[in-house]
Amino acid sequence: MYETKEFSPNHPASLICEFCRLFYNNGWVTGTGGGISIRDVDGPNPNIVYIAPSGIQKERLQPAEMFVVELPGKIIQTPNDEDRPPLSHDLAANFKYKPSACTPLFLSCYYMRDAGSCIHTHSQNVVMATLIWEDKVELSMSHIEHIKALPQLQRNKETGKVEKVGSMQFYDTMVLPIIENTPQEEDLTDSFQEAIENYPGATAVLVRRHGIYVWGETVWKAKVYNEAIDYLLELALKMHAHGIPLTKEAAK
Amino acid sequence: MYETKEFSPNHPASLICEFCRLFYNNGWVTGTGGGISIRDVDGPNPNIVYIAPSGIQKERLQPAEMFVVELPGKIIQTPNDEDRPPLSHDLAANFKYKPSACTPLFLSCYYMRDAGSCIHTHSQNVVMATLIWEDKVELSMSHIEHIKALPQLQRNKETGKVEKVGSMQFYDTMVLPIIENTPQEEDLTDSFQEAIENYPGATAVLVRRHGIYVWGETVWKAKVYNEAIDYLLELALKMHAHGIPLTKEAAK
Amino acid sequence: MYETKEFSPNHPASLICEFCRLFYNNGWVTGTGGGISIRDVDGPNPNIVYIAPSGIQKERLQPAEMFVVELPGKIIQTPNDEDRPPLSHDLAANFKYKPSACTPLFLSCYYMRDAGSCIHTHSQNVVMATLIWEDKVELSMSHIEHIKALPQLQRNKETGKVEKVGSMQFYDTMVLPIIENTPQEEDLTDSFQEAIENYPGATAVLVRRHGIYVWGETVWKAKVYNEAIDYLLELALKMHAHGIPLTKEAAK
Amino acid sequence: MYETKEFSPNHPASLICEFCRLFYNNGWVTGTGGGISIRDVDGPNPNIVYIAPSGIQKERLQPAEMFVVELPGKIIQTPNDEDRPPLSHDLAANFKYKPSACTPLFLSCYYMRDAGSCIHTHSQNVVMATLIWEDKVELSMSHIEHIKALPQLQRNKETGKVEKVGSMQFYDTMVLPIIENTPQEEDLTDSFQEAIENYPGATAVLVRRHGIYVWGETVWKAKVYNEAIDYLLELALKMHAHGIPLTKEAAK
Repeated sequence: MYETKEFSPNHPASLICEFCRLFYNNGWVTGTGGGISIRDVDGPNPNIVYIAPSGIQKERLQPAEMFVVELPGKIIQTPNDEDRPPLSHDLAANFKYKPSACTPLFLSCYYMRDAGSCIHTHSQNVVMATLIWEDKVELSMSHIEHIKALPQLQRNKETGKVEKVGSMQFYDTMVLPIIENTPQEEDLTDSFQEAIENYPGATAVLVRRHGIYVWGETVWKAKVYNEAIDYLLELALKMHAHGIPLTKEAAK
Repeated sequence: MYETKEFSPNHPASLICEFCRLFYNNGWVTGTGGGISIRDVDGPNPNIVYIAPSGIQKERLQPAEMFVVELPGKIIQTPNDEDRPPLSHDLAANFKYKPSACTPLFLSCYYMRDAGSCIHTHSQNVVMATLIWEDKVELSMSHIEHIKALPQLQRNKETGKVEKVGSMQFYDTMVLPIIENTPQEEDLTDSFQEAIENYPGATAVLVRRHGIYVWGETVWKAKVYNEAIDYLLELALKMHAHGIPLTKEAAK
Repeated sequence: MYETKEFSPNHPASLICEFCRLFYNNGWVTGTGGGISIRDVDGPNPNIVYIAPSGIQKERLQPAEMFVVELPGKIIQTPNDEDRPPLSHDLAANFKYKPSACTPLFLSCYYMRDAGSCIHTHSQNVVMATLIWEDKVELSMSHIEHIKALPQLQRNKETGKVEKVGSMQFYDTMVLPIIENTPQEEDLTDSFQEAIENYPGATAVLVRRHGIYVWGETVWKAKVYNEAIDYLLELALKMHAHGIPLTKEAAK
Repeated sequence: MYETKEFSPNHPASLICEFCRLFYNNGWVTGTGGGISIRDVDGPNPNIVYIAPSGIQKERLQPAEMFVVELPGKIIQTPNDEDRPPLSHDLAANFKYKPSACTPLFLSCYYMRDAGSCIHTHSQNVVMATLIWEDKVELSMSHIEHIKALPQLQRNKETGKVEKVGSMQFYDTMVLPIIENTPQEEDLTDSFQEAIENYPGATAVLVRRHGIYVWGETVWKAKVYNEAIDYLLELALKMHAHGIPLTKEAAK
């Protein structure tokens, strides 16, 4: 059973394609890098997750080329299905559709944070930040207006779940964990989940020499958080180049 | 009474959307940052002001999503009006329409300078300039051709009003005030108005660790001034990196 | 007699608009900066020159908004002509059409070099190069492949005219004169012409703290030379930042 | 016999045009620089090679303007053919169609590596890398996730042919040869072939003070490899600026 119907522009599979083109133009997913996944939070089954395939030109993806997973993790549709009509698209002839190596990381965000979407990019701002602060396991920044675009997250003491309680304030400190890269993306899962657990205030994890994972309540929120964090990291690199401390604490 | 009619491309609400997309592509309003407001100077009631909502993806705004204020400050229309037709747009489902936190600042430009538009961005060139010259309360620059795009402003001694008397010249010094950021954008109002009062020659105010407010006689002029100032600040950062003084005065 | 006919895409007035949008996206003519002029070399009267107006948003120009000059310098048409149909365009309402202050400089290229087009931009690469080498009156660069896009020019000893005799070679040295800026663009004319006279091998003049003038046999050639020179100056700035000499001579 | 039929979007001649526009926007082929060639690996005669002409504005090319070569090197069609219909295109009137000076280098990739496409750009990241490491004849980099976009190549000991055996891994070292530029592009052929022979693991050759040649099994793969290498070289320059070694080896 392969979907051949037209996808509306707001269908998760369509949004993945739209965002991949946007991220490509930002230089975040060139050379087949990066990935994105959306959980169908507004659809009939919010356990359905759409995931861009791995190792494929992100900016040329079509909605019919997604992998579809039903939580807790069963692949229910692949673009390789034999019963789907052949894709005339150039990608089909030149690339093999492989489930994204990011899949277990994406799913971790859905389980542990009830996220609606998770974005993974190879932004050079991220990679440079993890290289410049190579001995650090977290990155902190405060007193920049743009921080206000990020969510204020708090662990609910009764349920143990992390909840959004508002937006971060100008004087709040954004703290993002940095984990070490592994040869296989799947092998990041343990340290990734550990970081999510240990940083209840974070909506993103940096992976050293690799890139970033950002998630949010919806794909729109994930996109906004991603943009805000990238803006802040770009600024952090410039501040560092001028010897300006990233937090008021560090300035003392 | 909610406007459902089509908006012409030159309608202030349409121009806000067009400029938000342009500014987004410049990296000035990513992550929901920044804002813009236009007074309907050529319309039947020049006291009508259109303002982009706060905390919303600027590049995806539609004309029907503006707040409308009638000077001296009464909100006469919001995109949350119950009697307006539901917006099918994706923003409507994912973001809450809040009046822009910049509203009192925008209105200050209309009252104090008789402006036709005010633009607010989070340009990194601005933020870096306020960080590099963190101990300064103003930024001066001269002898760069691009300064000629800025207005020559002068306080009329009889009326006390600031008037445009021409364009700045190559050898003129652009002086822009820098004010300190506050946790709440509204709280900027006092120091913002003070800066406007104290710098009659300035058509913009920089807010440290935050961004810039630029205004002009019309939205087109505000856009041109904004572009010119951003060009000059980008250049200022490069000159600083090479130890080149920003004014001939400073060079002595 | 104002042209109301449609302009074909290859009409000089159309090409000016197309290139202004391109240059705007490059950051070369933001804030109304820069200018461009095309001589109608392939038209019925090659003495007709189209010139973009001054102090106007370059990226929004329409073909009907050009000034038209007939060499040796008589303005034969302006967008302010009373007998032309009113322009509905937004620029018309917000900006005044003034003949470009660059006009005498453009005309100098037509007279002295028989050029088919002259482009003027405020490229930051140019401005920074004139600031970094503030004590120099020329800029030299060699042994970069991109130099091959530039014309090999030579003064014909019999006619005294500068002629294109081929393309520059990899090992050739591009030498571009730098002149000092003046408060009024018109006042550049003398030193501009002197530079053209003294540098028969150059197809461009840099103006310190201001920008560049580049010309060529046709508008296409002028565009290519402009792109090549900007590429080279961008590279020159990076080489300088790494202490790499711009010529093999300088390396000794 | 000149092709006047419409070209489908996936025809090699169409893809050359599409990619030239993309590369132009990246700043890789401005000022007529760079070049691209595609072998018609999926067509009826895989010995047919399409090559963009030299010294022409790459971003404005049309499919009918390609040179067509049949391996082992006979030009079977040129845009200058007298029996083709005149091109109305602006390039035709302003530029001369010359076979690309890169032709012998492109053909080398087809012979020695059985490539399906070869891309040549003047990327400033490449040029700067060859200038910064001016005394090196190769560039090595490892432990960056983006390396995984590159092919793992190995010489088959029995056939002597270089084959793709998978993808590079995170901990693998990308090693790219750097050859010296020559006044004439054709004269690069010997050292280019020598580099291909001596670096069986490389899918690209850097040319000092000039640019890069990247090839792949298909044009899509060549594009991906090109993007990945440019990303890595851009990162290498930033790492160098911060004193961060490019390989773990070099860090010891």
